This record gives sequence, structure tokens and C-alpha cells, in this order.
Amino acid sequence: MSDPANKLPIGIFDSGVGGLTVYRALHDRLPNERFIYLGDTARVPYGTKSLATVERYAIENSEFLASLGIKMLVVACNTASALALPAIRAKIGIEVVGVIGPGGRRAVEVTSGRERPVIGVIATEATVSSGAYQAAIQRASATAEVIQQGCPLFVPLAEEGWTREPETYSIAERYLARIRESRPDALVLGCTHYPILRDVIQSTIGEDVQLIDSGEATADEVVALLAELGLADPDEVGGSRRLCDDLDHFFVTDAAERFANVAERFLGTTPSKLEAIEVYGLDQVKGGSVIK
Amino acid sequence: MSDPANKLPIGIFDSGVGGLTVYRALHDRLPNERFIYLGDTARVPYGTKSLATVERYAIENSEFLASLGIKMLVVACNTASALALPAIRAKIGIEVVGVIGPGGRRAVEVTSGRERPVIGVIATEATVSSGAYQAAIQRASATAEVIQQGCPLFVPLAEEGWTREPETYSIAERYLARIRESRPDALVLGCTHYPILRDVIQSTIGEDVQLIDSGEATADEVVALLAELGLADPDEVGGSRRLCDDLDHFFVTDAAERFANVAERFLGTTPSKLEAIEVYGLDQVKGGSVIK
Repeated sequence: MSDPANKLPIGIFDSGVGGLTVYRALHDRLPNERFIYLGDTARVPYGTKSLATVERYAIENSEFLASLGIKMLVVACNTASALALPAIRAKIGIEVVGVIGPGGRRAVEVTSGRERPVIGVIATEATVSSGAYQAAIQRASATAEVIQQGCPLFVPLAEEGWTREPETYSIAERYLARIRESRPDALVLGCTHYPILRDVIQSTIGEDVQLIDSGEATADEVVALLAELGLADPDEVGGSRRLCDDLDHFFVTDAAERFANVAERFLGTTPSKLEAIEVYGLDQVKGGSVIK
Repeated sequence: MSDPANKLPIGIFDSGVGGLTVYRALHDRLPNERFIYLGDTARVPYGTKSLATVERYAIENSEFLASLGIKMLVVACNTASALALPAIRAKIGIEVVGVIGPGGRRAVEVTSGRERPVIGVIATEATVSSGAYQAAIQRASATAEVIQQGCPLFVPLAEEGWTREPETYSIAERYLARIRESRPDALVLGCTHYPILRDVIQSTIGEDVQLIDSGEATADEVVALLAELGLADPDEVGGSRRLCDDLDHFFVTDAAERFANVAERFLGTTPSKLEAIEVYGLDQVKGGSVIK
């Protein structure tokens, strides 16, 4: 018989819908696991907000997921990973995985053939200001040169689904010109929304530049970590496993319908179990209350 | 001696910085009055959020301002005005003025020479979905035809300060083409951010179309309402009165520094008195607590 902790789901939170790309990457790799996803759609975006506020939101989200019983927490949001991991770890007693470390390490891995790799990082303003990717990359490589660029309009463009519009190409050209001039070996997509604009970004930065999806890199590290900690669920789940089936539970803090629509666009399916909740002031509210 | 209520300041709230344009319009017209401004920068934007959430945020903001002692509340945010006025009025016992009614009435006034005026409205998705401008215009004119268009990328473009970029013109062309085809007599700027993009919008919709700034229209109605209710302050304030001087008090729920930078861009000056506070769960927290 397996340890009861192994039977708990894995928690994932994001500031909104972007983290669904991380959910998909985890789901693809871990057919025995169940997931609880929280999208903080009432307070999205995080990328333009301050350290103090991002920390507060991240802790509230983490405590909500921890209160439901999870064996590991994946912080899918790059901004929250960049700013709030120490604060989250200080608050909850379970393993916490962010996306910055895995993304940074993957960038170093794929450029390991170069003596002095040049790695571009595109992210929100808050993530860029934190310097977290730069630090993660330079911990993994003493010689890597890192060039960062904030791309604040990419999130609203992705949310609007403007993935092929000429304006999106033009804005990408403006944001990426400086990094392209430095002839990067790899470019980290340092925000969960950016994989949605992958085609635009790839064609603008150049086809020879390897794009790093931090969510994919994180999913690989979660697989390894579950094994290392002996937390993987050894039992196959019953029935056929598909994305968003009723073994996975989705929560949003606002606008469940909009979330379902975007999920359909991202994943080709909508969550079977989707609930709107409040997470703020959880110590008063205990477990969140259904607002919709 | 004047009634003590006359000496109270006027409260203004917005989802963020856009309402500063309404503050300026009020300040220009009311040199004897003091203002308290709250920008809910921790939860901006409202325009993509649900009715339930916008109502909750609007009530929290209103209760915070009411707790400081104000004689009138101006809801500068179009989305909150469109969705939450009845909820706010049910909660606080002071006069509440939104921007939708004044903006709609002004549009009807300026097109009153037309037998069947055509009025365009551009706004956030939430404001458009609410139908509030349509209702306000049609209450003032039985014959007006209203054509609405959501322009979700205008807020991030204005926040980025992209007021002359070719991409902004191109995006405006895309959003405004349908309204322009209907040959409108007037176009309502139904979001406090849009006046920042006034030049782009005017040149795209056509120089002969009259743009309606709901904030300006609202300020005119506030002047009239103060007189009507006998709430105007008859005494001149001491010293020379200028925008953002220390008689006006500014609060934000996040990132005071960013707010000060945007205020500099919008108003050419920064608030003398600017504080970051929390407004959520105010019934527990009582009066907000300083978070920064």
C-alpha cells in the first residue's frame, strides 16, 4: 500500500489562465497524478504590481491550495516565482517549485556547447526588475551573458488571442530588436503567456534561436523531484485520463466563464470541475467562499 | 459660518491612474474644494472582470473613502460606474456620481442638431457588455442610434505611454473601422484611459467627429450638483491652489512609485500626499493599514 501523501494532488497556481500551459505539460508527463489549479483571475495581471502585493497574493493563493491538501506546489506564474518563492516557502510546509530556476537551468543546458553563451530573457516588468532569471542562469553558468527585455504588451495581446496579427509582429520587432542584435543562442519565454505568441517570437528573433518554455522545463523537474522525494503516485488512475477531466479540479477567483473560454482556446477543452472562489483574507474566511 | 459638511472633501476612485484625468477636470472647475483620490492599482484592470468582482471592489473602495469623511463620491472608473453604482448607493449614505450618465447626456447634447444622431461608444469589454452607455444615451434621446466597440488593448497601450506609435494607430484603425463606417456624429471615450490616446482616436475616427470625454462631462455635473445640494465650499482655500498640492490626498492600493510616475506624465506633477493602503476586507481591517 502506498503512503497516503502519494495520493494527494499537485497544486498549481498562476495569476490567471497562462499557467494552463504548465498544467498541460505536467499532465502530459504524469498520467498517474491529479492536479488542483488556481487562477487568480480577480487580480491578474501580477507583472505590473509591486513586490509586497505579489508576495501577498502568492501567499494567499498558496495557503488556499495547501488548505485543500496537496503534496507539492508548482508556482506556474513567472512573476510570483521571481518575487515570492521565499515568502511562500516560509509560510507553507510542502515542497514548492517555481518556473524561474528550471527555465534558467534549461537555457544553460541547451547552450552548453558554447563557451560564452548569450541567453535572452523576455518577461514582465516585475520579473525583469527582480533579476531572478539572470541570477538563476548565472548560478548554472559562470560564463553566460544574459540580456533581459520587458514585454508588457505581450500579455494583453496573448489574452486577446492576437497571435498572427501584423500589429503583434510589429510590437515583437520593437521589443526583440535589442536582444536579436546580441545574437542570442537561446531565448527564455519568461511568462506563461508568451508560449501563446511562440510563432511570432520565433520568426522575429530568428529561426536559429532556441526558445525555452519555462513551463516545459518545470514539468520535467517536477517529474524528477516527485521520484526523488518518493512522492509519485504508483497507482494508475482509473479510466482513461484526459486533460481537464473530473480528476483535476480548477478554481478561479473571478469570471469562470471567461476562464473556460480561454481554456478551450489553449487546451482544446474546458475543465469538468471549475469553481469561482475568494482567496483573500483566507485566515478570516477559512477555505474560501463560493462567490459565483 | 458654513455647514461643516461643506468643508468635507470630495472622494474620487478609479481602478488605477486613469481617473487622474477626472481629478484634473474637477480641480480645474472647483478651486475651493479639496479631493481624496483612491486608485485601486493592486487590482487594476476592472474592464476584464466580472460584475460580482467589480461590485465587490467598488464597494470596498467606496467604504474606504466614506470612512475618511467625504461629502460626495465620484466614481471615475467607467467600468465601476457601468456595473456597480446601484450596489455602491445601497451601501453608502452620500451622493454618488458616476461617469456614464454625464458622458451619455453630453453626447446627446452635442448631437442635438441631428434628427437621428449616431453616437459611437468605445469602452472596456465589461462596460460594453453592461449596455450602460446605450441605456444612458437612449434615456436622453429617443432617436439616437448607438454603436459600441470594446477596445481592450487601449488600456495597456495608454499605460505604456504608446500615444504616437504606429502600432497604436494600426490597432485603433482595427477597432474603430466599424464605427467609422456608420458615420457617427460623436464618439464617447468610455474609459478614463482613452483621453490619453485622444490624438490617435481623433485622427482615426475623423476630424469631424466630436469626441466626448466623460470625465469632463462628469466634472460639469458635479459642479452643478454641489450647488443644487448646497454642498459647495463657499470659502476660498488658503494659498495658491495647484494640482496635487497638499490639500489633496492620494491613496493607492499598490505601487505608489509607479503611480507617481504616471501622474507626472498625465498631470505634469506628482502628488504631495500619496499613501499606499489596503482596502479589502475593510470591515475587518478598519480604515486600511499601510502596506508600504
